[in-house]
Formats: sequence, structure tokens, C-alpha cells
Amino acid sequence: MQISLEGMEIAVIGGDARELALLEELSGLGAQMNVAGLPVKGGLKNVFTYSDPAECLNGVDAVILPVPGVSEKGFLYCALAEQPLVFTWELAAKFPANIPVFVGVAGPLLTVMASKAGLRLIELMKRDEVAILNSIPTAEGAVQMAMEMLPVTIHGCSAFVLGFGRTGATLARLLGVMGAKTSVLARRPEYLARITELNLRPLPFKNMAAYLEEADVIFNTVPALVLTGELLERLSPETVIIDLASAPGGVDFQKAESMGIKAVLAPGLPGKVAPRTAGKILAQVITRLLLEESDYS
Amino acid sequence: MQISLEGMEIAVIGGDARELALLEELSGLGAQMNVAGLPVKGGLKNVFTYSDPAECLNGVDAVILPVPGVSEKGFLYCALAEQPLVFTWELAAKFPANIPVFVGVAGPLLTVMASKAGLRLIELMKRDEVAILNSIPTAEGAVQMAMEMLPVTIHGCSAFVLGFGRTGATLARLLGVMGAKTSVLARRPEYLARITELNLRPLPFKNMAAYLEEADVIFNTVPALVLTGELLERLSPETVIIDLASAPGGVDFQKAESMGIKAVLAPGLPGKVAPRTAGKILAQVITRLLLEESDYS
Repeated sequence: MQISLEGMEIAVIGGDARELALLEELSGLGAQMNVAGLPVKGGLKNVFTYSDPAECLNGVDAVILPVPGVSEKGFLYCALAEQPLVFTWELAAKFPANIPVFVGVAGPLLTVMASKAGLRLIELMKRDEVAILNSIPTAEGAVQMAMEMLPVTIHGCSAFVLGFGRTGATLARLLGVMGAKTSVLARRPEYLARITELNLRPLPFKNMAAYLEEADVIFNTVPALVLTGELLERLSPETVIIDLASAPGGVDFQKAESMGIKAVLAPGLPGKVAPRTAGKILAQVITRLLLEESDYS
Repeated sequence: MQISLEGMEIAVIGGDARELALLEELSGLGAQMNVAGLPVKGGLKNVFTYSDPAECLNGVDAVILPVPGVSEKGFLYCALAEQPLVFTWELAAKFPANIPVFVGVAGPLLTVMASKAGLRLIELMKRDEVAILNSIPTAEGAVQMAMEMLPVTIHGCSAFVLGFGRTGATLARLLGVMGAKTSVLARRPEYLARITELNLRPLPFKNMAAYLEEADVIFNTVPALVLTGELLERLSPETVIIDLASAPGGVDFQKAESMGIKAVLAPGLPGKVAPRTAGKILAQVITRLLLEESDYS
């Protein structure tokens, strides 16, 4: 079956290079795209640009808001636009009723406004499907950072991955195939079994303290303080720490700095290291969700 | 058998972070290291520093010159030293007779001086063993550059590797396990067979023109003009080219620039992206050669 979005009209308001990629994908599938707050290169079929976001909402079947949504001061994220865009009550009232409104993550303000204005928000980043696909650019971005920070190759280095969730699993597998001696810390016995199957070294979290000193690089994916000051004291000052958990991360950064350990918090890697891939991932999931909606409508 | 260099005295003159790593390795195996033109951190056992390189040569069993050797103006490469070091006839005359003198690559001046002074030069970079081990940091450095330059992930991208020599083979395998759709251009039928065995896409060089437009990234390893202006014209301006061949490389860079194609020449990656790994590789090979010498002496 050929996938097609022909006959659909979709508004895109704000965003960055990810939305530019998404736009190309969706217009390529035949959707008419109405765009505001995003500089679109010329020559794209089915793409219409508006200076006023309210105008691009007329009769659309869906709206795509930027991945980071709306700031707590009410600004729509629009990194490439010439002027700031405000998400007003007036704008919210212009959204056609009951259409899906896609956003990466809705902060408190957008959540409240959407609820009061009756918008049907779909938070893409909360979906397992998106998180798993995004783990690919996240893992590559983490490896890229490690390459930039380490004086040794990934091949043959001792790498520790804390956590075996969606990102941890992808990163551990990548490090393994690249030739790193890869240890993976996990709690659940079924995760430790899967780590064994991948031919990586499974380590229960409770044994972490005894092994951490072997690490050339530690990747944290656990959104809780796992690398405490006490644990950091066991590390060599040459160890590199890359924290992929959402802010504030899982590392005692102050202690790390005082020890001269290079530790960085690196959230939101997909949009930074591979915006086009990140945009394609969003396009793929949005397309599937739109087609499901039209199948059942 | 425990490897030991105890009883050996080795001089190291000039160099960079690679020689610092090498120094740690060889002193760790018990060799006495006499060092000039390289700032050594304190606390290393068996390491003695000299301000005059002539003084560190007294009675040594081997000399290690910097990887890039001596410039055509006679300067020893010493990137970390406070003052330049000149490779004089006087210094050459101080080398004990018949000992191995290790260097990465000997340029014309060093080759002539060594020959006239009766030095036994061993060019490490010309050895297959070193080239194969160095292909690991070279391949990782190339992937790192591609990650930095591409808006998409390595996973799922279309990567072309031109040439299947020591570097090409390592790079192609790495790209393949990272999930890139990897095409490898080679001439020899046995190489095309090996590329097939690795589950990568084998392409005879003569068919290159027909496929190149698919590439997101092209890595050249062939030290001859393979990416001619005519071939570049088939590429999208978004293609990224990374040329790993020694200068002047194998790409018509002028034509690439005029087309807006990002093309970079990236020689000498091991010392840049992973100096400690590069130093360990040298230490490993030098150790083996020194032990062979003492076995047969």
C-alpha cells in the first residue's frame, strides 16, 4: 500500500530544523502544509507560508506545534523565525474543533491552555514508539560526545551504561558493536538476561561501587541521582561522564567538577546532532497517527 | 610470559601526546626512559628528563623520534616543548652505533641525514601492523567527523567507502555495524567477495558513476584522484565528503567547493582524535620489535 496524505491540510507553527524536515516529508506524501514562524526554502510543492499563525489554521485537519511547545512565558518555540510568536488565547480559539494538535512535550502553561480551550493535545515524546526511534540519534550523539572528550578510541575502551531503558539499551548495543568493553548496570533480572544475550557485561546496580573505577567513560540514562559524590570518589579524574537523563540529570556535577572530572549533561540530543533524522521520526509517527484517525473516522 | 623491558634504556626526543602515552607504557614495562623536548608529568617511575637532547642519548638501546620526524628545515617535531629542537649533524653523531631509531615517517632530510650518519631508521607507519591498528582510530575519527557534519544519523544513512585497503576495510565494517547502508567500492574480485561476506554492498569501481548520487556521505581512502569534477557533478550539494587519503587526497576540492559540497581532507586522524590510543599502538609495536632484537642479539 502506498502511503498518502493527499486531501489533508496540516498547519505547522514555529519549530526548527526538525520541523523543516518534517514539512518536506509530509508535503512529499501529498498533504497541504500551512506554515507560520518557520522559514521554508522555495520550490516545495504543497507548502504555503503565512506571517500570521492564525491564518494558517483555517480548516486544517491537524496542527503541529514545535517539539518544545510553549514556554512558561507563552512564547511558541520558533528558533528560526524572525520574530517571536506568542501562543495567545485568541490563537487557541482559532484551532478547528477536535483536530489532533501534535507537540513534543507540553509544559504546564500549554497543558492548562489546551485543556481550557478544548484542544486535543498529543504529546509525541511521551510515546514509546517515538522514544525508541529517538534513542538512535541520542545514542549516536552520546558516542560522538565521548569521541570528542576521550583521548582513546571507543574500540577497546571500558564503557559503563547506567540503566537499560529505551536509550540505555540502544546505546549499550551500539557501544558493543563498536568494540567497547561494555558494562551495563540494571536492576531487573530480565534486563540483566537481555544484556547477557547481547554479549555485554551485565552488572546489578547494587554492585556498581565495586566496578566503576574501571570505566573510561560512564553514560547515565537514569533520571535520579545515581552517581553520588561518594561514588564519584572512586573514579579516576580522567573518567568522562555523559549524562543523558533529563535535567537535572543523575550526577553530582558539583562534586565531579571539584574532582576535575569532565561531566556533561546532554539532554535533547536528537534535535541537536541529527535534526533531519529527528524530523523524519516525527513525520513517520504523525503520518501513522493521522492515517489511523482517518481510518476510524 | 610476562613482557618486560627491564634493563633497557630508551631515549625519546620531541613528540606530542602520543609520545607521552608511549612513555607511560614503556616505562610501565620497566624500561628506563630518557626524555627531551616533551613535558613529562611528575611521578612517573623510570623516567628522566633532559633539556639537551644530546645528553639523553648516552648508552641507550634505542631512540624514539616523533611520529612526523624532522621537517625539511631540520626541526624535530615537538608540539609540546617550550623551545624548538633542531636535528643537527652533531646530534646525529651522538646516537650509539647500530641501535634502532624509531620514527613514524622519515621525510627526505631525515632519510639522507640518517643514511650519512649511519643511523638504523625504522619507519613505523610503513609497517602493515601499525597501519592496521591505526585504522581503528582513523575509522572512528572519520565517523566522528561524519556525525558532526551530517544532519542525519549514521544509522540508516547511505554511506560509500571508496577503497577496501586497511583503512577502508575497518571503516566499512564499522559503518555496517552502526547501521549505515554501506556501499564499498573496490576493484579486486577478492575484495568484492570479502565485502559481500561482511554483508555490505560491493560495487566495482567502474560502476561508481551510476550509484554515487545515492550517497549521504562518501569516505575516500584511495590516494589518487577518484572523485573527479565530472563525478562530483552527479552528487547532491548536500553530500558530505571525507577524504582520508594522504595529501593531496583523492577529491577535486575546488570543484566541490564551487558546488557547495562540504568536502574535507582529514589525514593523520589517530594522533588528533585518540592520541593515547595512537601512543599505545606505537608502544605495542616498538615493544615487540625491541624484544625481537634482544632475542636474536
